[in-house]
Amino acid sequence: MNILTLSCRTHSIKFHLFTWGGESLLAAGDVKRVGLGGTSISLKVTGRENETQEVEFVDHRGAVSLILAILDDPRHGIGDEAVQIGAVGHRVAHGGEQFRHSVVIDDQVLDAIRDLQQLAPLHNAANIAGIEAAAALLPHIPHVAIFDTAFHVTMPDFAYIYPLPYEWYKKFGVRRYGFHGPSHIYLSRRAAMLLGKPAAACNLITIHIEKGVSLCAIKNGISIDTSMGLTPLEGAVMETRSGDFDAGITPFIMQQLNLSAREMESILNQKSGMLGITGLNTDRRHILEAASTGHARCKLALKMEAYRLKKYIGAYLAAVGPLDAVVFTTGVAEWEWLARELTLEGLECFGILPDPERNRAVRSEREEALITTDASPVKVFVIPTDEELVFAQDVTAILAGEYSDHQHYDYSFARPDFVPLQPAA
Amino acid sequence: MNILTLSCRTHSIKFHLFTWGGESLLAAGDVKRVGLGGTSISLKVTGRENETQEVEFVDHRGAVSLILAILDDPRHGIGDEAVQIGAVGHRVAHGGEQFRHSVVIDDQVLDAIRDLQQLAPLHNAANIAGIEAAAALLPHIPHVAIFDTAFHVTMPDFAYIYPLPYEWYKKFGVRRYGFHGPSHIYLSRRAAMLLGKPAAACNLITIHIEKGVSLCAIKNGISIDTSMGLTPLEGAVMETRSGDFDAGITPFIMQQLNLSAREMESILNQKSGMLGITGLNTDRRHILEAASTGHARCKLALKMEAYRLKKYIGAYLAAVGPLDAVVFTTGVAEWEWLARELTLEGLECFGILPDPERNRAVRSEREEALITTDASPVKVFVIPTDEELVFAQDVTAILAGEYSDHQHYDYSFARPDFVPLQPAA
Repeated sequence: MNILTLSCRTHSIKFHLFTWGGESLLAAGDVKRVGLGGTSISLKVTGRENETQEVEFVDHRGAVSLILAILDDPRHGIGDEAVQIGAVGHRVAHGGEQFRHSVVIDDQVLDAIRDLQQLAPLHNAANIAGIEAAAALLPHIPHVAIFDTAFHVTMPDFAYIYPLPYEWYKKFGVRRYGFHGPSHIYLSRRAAMLLGKPAAACNLITIHIEKGVSLCAIKNGISIDTSMGLTPLEGAVMETRSGDFDAGITPFIMQQLNLSAREMESILNQKSGMLGITGLNTDRRHILEAASTGHARCKLALKMEAYRLKKYIGAYLAAVGPLDAVVFTTGVAEWEWLARELTLEGLECFGILPDPERNRAVRSEREEALITTDASPVKVFVIPTDEELVFAQDVTAILAGEYSDHQHYDYSFARPDFVPLQPAA
Repeated sequence: MNILTLSCRTHSIKFHLFTWGGESLLAAGDVKRVGLGGTSISLKVTGRENETQEVEFVDHRGAVSLILAILDDPRHGIGDEAVQIGAVGHRVAHGGEQFRHSVVIDDQVLDAIRDLQQLAPLHNAANIAGIEAAAALLPHIPHVAIFDTAFHVTMPDFAYIYPLPYEWYKKFGVRRYGFHGPSHIYLSRRAAMLLGKPAAACNLITIHIEKGVSLCAIKNGISIDTSMGLTPLEGAVMETRSGDFDAGITPFIMQQLNLSAREMESILNQKSGMLGITGLNTDRRHILEAASTGHARCKLALKMEAYRLKKYIGAYLAAVGPLDAVVFTTGVAEWEWLARELTLEGLECFGILPDPERNRAVRSEREEALITTDASPVKVFVIPTDEELVFAQDVTAILAGEYSDHQHYDYSFARPDFVPLQPAA
């Protein structure tokens, strides 16, 4: 029996097919432009070439149906096991205060996820569409929800309450929740292994960098603070999301430009961050490359990103106390050394002694590496994250009745004999 | 000849009368409820009892006129020198990018301050009203503007640009400016003296706590970052201002409560921060006292304030590198030890070793004190600030042709023989 994991977004779905327990990855892929027309589905089966098919138009249900069909197609060589999906793990962005760990989805759970939609309208809506589609197509197997927020339920109130009218918390749930939980747990458990210490004895700062960027302050293995908040807009500079800025700017600009709340929200989410600073609607790779060759606003954007990450490292060090390690995900491996170099510059007073050569040598997206000197009191690791493996293992553990929450489950990737899975896609 | 300094706010004016050069303080006081009716003026002449007069209603011009009359009244015993005001120093909140140091006010300067009003509508409007009133009543003497923003002009672009559409910076001046400049320079120069090092060799984090709270990262004597931004809303938790929070919350709440940008702005400035968390419309003294006796939301508010200051200390340590000292202003002296104790807790990894007894012993509002142990690698000082002395000395220096900017002027309070002025009021 295999496990299918689905990460549904508004206009795309990422999928992974694992053997039971997540011991190996059989296939992975994504569907792009869901609901937009000109949809395409890509599939990478381990050991084979990438396959891409174009289709006219699909909604989320059509996209899940496409995924099941392509996995089931004998031409792609997954073999007889392909159709034997025993359970589906669904990434759900927002679990609010209610979902403190992964759960089997029933009507009540689905209703609760629907009720949380107002906290993450775009994200949870896509997750719900994916759950409904998969449940309709695979009605006789368990579906499990894995929440981006659940790893952060251990934050103390003084870290999650905002300095805003308290009734907004009571009435609307306005508080810090944080996201990227499965990634932060994966990074923290791998870092503990690399440090040779139990996770519960490690103080870490984990930095997840992709389109969204979030940092997590981990004390004795648990999340005590994280940079994303009620929404994924807070924190570090991101590809198109602003991250932190003076809250006085929002009403100022809304009045200057006569913008509605919704229009402002859209600019902050889609036209800010690296895009806003550089004015270039391009991907991270090009910004990093342009910065390295002197493009002024790309250099500025990269300096800002690094400076703000540096300040978060200092802030979280103040929160966690004596630090064992800082962990970066790989991001855009080819150029990411530059972002790391800028971020770590001048942090010697924290006991962080980067090794420039080790750092520059990390170019693969699947390599776990130490990038500080051997003498560095605080280690810095680059660790490729694997959120989907967390999804798959949560599914297995829940169905085996072995799971209570992220903090207490013995994930395979926290064990000495674990070998990071090579990606299919 | 004497120097009058004026700090005009929307509904109040603080005034100080110094001898030339700011060598001593002759009198100080304030006018409350300007423009609201039920106005009162308080005067404290050095060595005498406090005097308060009630008047029906005055606007800013009427208030300045009251100040001149009360200073001039022989019954208050300032003596013959009272009327001999040779110059007026006006605090101006926002100097934008244009005003990089204090300047003599002429028509062109006043127009420029008017042009900057959109960046600080409430603050600069009150400052302009004060300048116009004083210039009309004292037309034959020089008036000097001292800008809250000027000390921070040394920030690098990666600290002052926001991760927002770059054209907002070009078109509307949306960037970090910072405030409380005169206080941060005073604190930094006094700390350098207490450290026995030249200011230009000191790395400091200065924390100005009053109704507004701001932190400044000072490297080699100059401001390289500060927590307030385009507006005084950004940064630490304040009495009624929020400080930092997820920018995604603003559009979310505006849509939930159907609020306009202006209404939201007003809640963030007037109903948030300590007031928002505690729900208590009371002063800082009572919140600190209630927290010490177990009031749950006051305890939470104080923990949040301390935790967020702690994170700023870490963040600014990352920015300035090896740190000489952290400096607190006194705030509400009687209870402020508690806020400092919570803020400094757990920062041993930064070399900050607080001495709880020394900290608790600081109860006066005029005492300069070291509150770390003798062995602490990083010192923490409590230093009562004196912004008005900076105003007075800028006025004297400019009129004597001895002044270029805050960084290069030899203030009296930066000298070994300086004795902090005892307050009149």
